[in-house]
Amino acid sequence: MRKLLVIGVGVGDPDFVTIQAVDALNAVDVFFLLDKGPAADDLTHARQAICERFITHDRYRTVTVTDPPRDRAAADYPDAVRRWRDERAERLERVIDAELDEDGVGGFLVWGDPSLYDGTIRVIETMLKRGALTLEYEVIAGISSIQALAARHRIAINRVAGPVHVTTGRRIKEALPDNADDIVVMLDADLACAAYRDEDIDIYWGAYLGTEDEVLVAGKLGDVVDQIAQTRAELRERKGWIMDTYLLRRIG
Amino acid sequence: MRKLLVIGVGVGDPDFVTIQAVDALNAVDVFFLLDKGPAADDLTHARQAICERFITHDRYRTVTVTDPPRDRAAADYPDAVRRWRDERAERLERVIDAELDEDGVGGFLVWGDPSLYDGTIRVIETMLKRGALTLEYEVIAGISSIQALAARHRIAINRVAGPVHVTTGRRIKEALPDNADDIVVMLDADLACAAYRDEDIDIYWGAYLGTEDEVLVAGKLGDVVDQIAQTRAELRERKGWIMDTYLLRRIG
Ligand SMILES: C[S@@+](CC[C@H](N)C(=O)[O-])C[C@H]1O[C@@H](n2cnc3c(N)ncnc32)[C@H](O)[C@@H]1O
Ligand SMILES: C[S@@+](CC[C@H](N)C(=O)[O-])C[C@H]1O[C@@H](n2cnc3c(N)ncnc32)[C@H](O)[C@@H]1O
Repeated sequence: MRKLLVIGVGVGDPDFVTIQAVDALNAVDVFFLLDKGPAADDLTHARQAICERFITHDRYRTVTVTDPPRDRAAADYPDAVRRWRDERAERLERVIDAELDEDGVGGFLVWGDPSLYDGTIRVIETMLKRGALTLEYEVIAGISSIQALAARHRIAINRVAGPVHVTTGRRIKEALPDNADDIVVMLDADLACAAYRDEDIDIYWGAYLGTEDEVLVAGKLGDVVDQIAQTRAELRERKGWIMDTYLLRRIG
Repeated sequence: MRKLLVIGVGVGDPDFVTIQAVDALNAVDVFFLLDKGPAADDLTHARQAICERFITHDRYRTVTVTDPPRDRAAADYPDAVRRWRDERAERLERVIDAELDEDGVGGFLVWGDPSLYDGTIRVIETMLKRGALTLEYEVIAGISSIQALAARHRIAINRVAGPVHVTTGRRIKEALPDNADDIVVMLDADLACAAYRDEDIDIYWGAYLGTEDEVLVAGKLGDVVDQIAQTRAELRERKGWIMDTYLLRRIG
């Protein structure tokens, strides 16, 4: 039977890769590349470096799965995402059927951890529900951006027995959650936390974590948010894209 | 200068260890053991297996740091935890000073990820604030129980661009968070989610994740919670302790 491996490779630093991921990488015959977006080239490059460093044979191939066009205006809404995902699943199904032997192993290299804001598992589940292909699959955890953020700042994400709320930039624009003093924000295009600069909050911010371009800033939100905004703008200008994550910690 | 490495080794499966952790393990002269609690022996055993498997020399030693007595009745409250942590920091300081050379590397093997419900970073920070020892330290991320749970169930922890609330058994006894449909529960001694059995919630439960004793159950909360409760009781009886984590996912 065909087998798929969804391999979390951590956020960029090849040293984040687990032993389990190394073994999985070496088991793969065909890597399926799902990337899109402005950072795609750099991420593909980072993944290639991981393959070159850890795979001990040269019998693997890489096949790109072209994404269906996406309605950017509606892209934030679950419905548009679902339709788009169905089409994507169909394309993936065709590519797997064409490219993977009956007992072949297909691999997906996922940035960070596959369980966190990543669509790979969902596209595979959608494909399996279509019923045309029968295959096994396995998920391999990887170091996420949240963990890299915490490790580099040398902090715990939670306070003693306290909750942690993981959310997105879009959501904190409405309000900060009122039931957690530790809030991790991902997928934030505009540094939405700036709206809370007058509150008693510390921020631990990190961009391009785990890569050569890593930048860290920490401090009282009101004191450092302008510096972060400026750094962010410069970095995005220079590289063409930015990936950043931060923890907001209410104090007192 | 002395250096400390706080090394996340993942939740049990030696294959969860990252390349960065392997390098760090090999750099350590003295491992400091902070464990306590019913699972301490088994966790120590798991950590030993990791050291034996990945450390390529035999010049390392292990030193146990005896915990100060803890007021179990008050143990859940931040204040008691703080007092206890101060004393613990003082003990650690004495042990490091006595056991680690001026340019030695000390290591702490942390179960899972050091940023998630783990006190190692805090005890080191508390010790450093005392000002008696000067040293560098570094944190190395590890695969957490949340990620192992998600990987074994082959699920994402979040829904499309949705938030995730990470909390404790004690907290969900009061109420489930109303601002997240995906809720990860850790540190739950009594399967507190049973109180919500009549709500439209799916549960993805995992015990002893990453170990030989791993058990997974998933389903509608009302349908499977009794089975989980029974399994939990049997396992705890058999091993003397249990470590479990689960995701509650509101449906519809
Ligand atoms: C589509 S999600 C993927 C998350 C990924 N699966 C993980 O485990 O971190 C992309 C978001 O993750 C965060 N992110 C990913 N890589 C990052 C990095 N190297 N540094 C900072 N943030 C990162 C950013 O918030 C970004 O908007
Ligand atoms: C003190 S916290 C440590 C968490 C750890 N640092 C991590 O990254 O998962 C202990 C809690 O973590 C969860 N946990 C730790 N190891 C686990 C495992 N192997 N399987 C299931 N849950 C686990 C349980 O909820 C347990 O109550």
